[in-house]
Amino acid sequence: MSIALQKVNLTEKFGLFAEHWQPKIVAELNGQYIKLAKFQGPFEWHHHENEDEMFLVHRGSFRMELRDRVVILGPGDLIVIPRGVEHRPVADDEAEVVMFEPATTLNTGNLRNERTVTVLERL
Amino acid sequence: MSIALQKVNLTEKFGLFAEHWQPKIVAELNGQYIKLAKFQGPFEWHHHENEDEMFLVHRGSFRMELRDRVVILGPGDLIVIPRGVEHRPVADDEAEVVMFEPATTLNTGNLRNERTVTVLERL
Repeated sequence: MSIALQKVNLTEKFGLFAEHWQPKIVAELNGQYIKLAKFQGPFEWHHHENEDEMFLVHRGSFRMELRDRVVILGPGDLIVIPRGVEHRPVADDEAEVVMFEPATTLNTGNLRNERTVTVLERL
Repeated sequence: MSIALQKVNLTEKFGLFAEHWQPKIVAELNGQYIKLAKFQGPFEWHHHENEDEMFLVHRGSFRMELRDRVVILGPGDLIVIPRGVEHRPVADDEAEVVMFEPATTLNTGNLRNERTVTVLERL
């Protein structure tokens, strides 16, 4: 039976890595990935041309900076950032975040720099 | 700014309804819905022809019955049921479950019966 039919425990999977801003794939469905990432400090301002992106906080909290305001997200909070909308996640303390987005989404969106992760690890 | 840019708190949204097996839409992205549902008792055996479906437990627990085995899911556990795979969720006690699936997915999959919800409420 396919690996997709294994259950995934989020706490266990978050325990398998320590790096910040390096999304890991834990599941795939309908051409979308479920990714886990640890946030700490400020990320980069960016947007995604063709993809909406969802963030769900598992542990900790972070703020999603938008050009016109800031949204604070804690455990059990989710937000969808529609395509084209500039955003910058910032975590004062480490946060564990589940992301749901198309398999084609790059973490830095329209930017390519040293924080861009092109080959994602699967946990 | 669009309603999609409001954050959604899962606990608050689960507090807005009491019905079992009646998925509610709380967010949309890339043609996929994020739905919340309360499970209690056994659902129906069914499958989805063209859609993979993800279940993430928010509170409580349930078992996902497959034709060859059973997977027990508790808080922070997720499972993807690939298209075509027969499954039956069963919750001995009430469970709160987040589902990710295409906007076209019917809750009863290949079945149409009194438990089929064709017009989903948005919270």
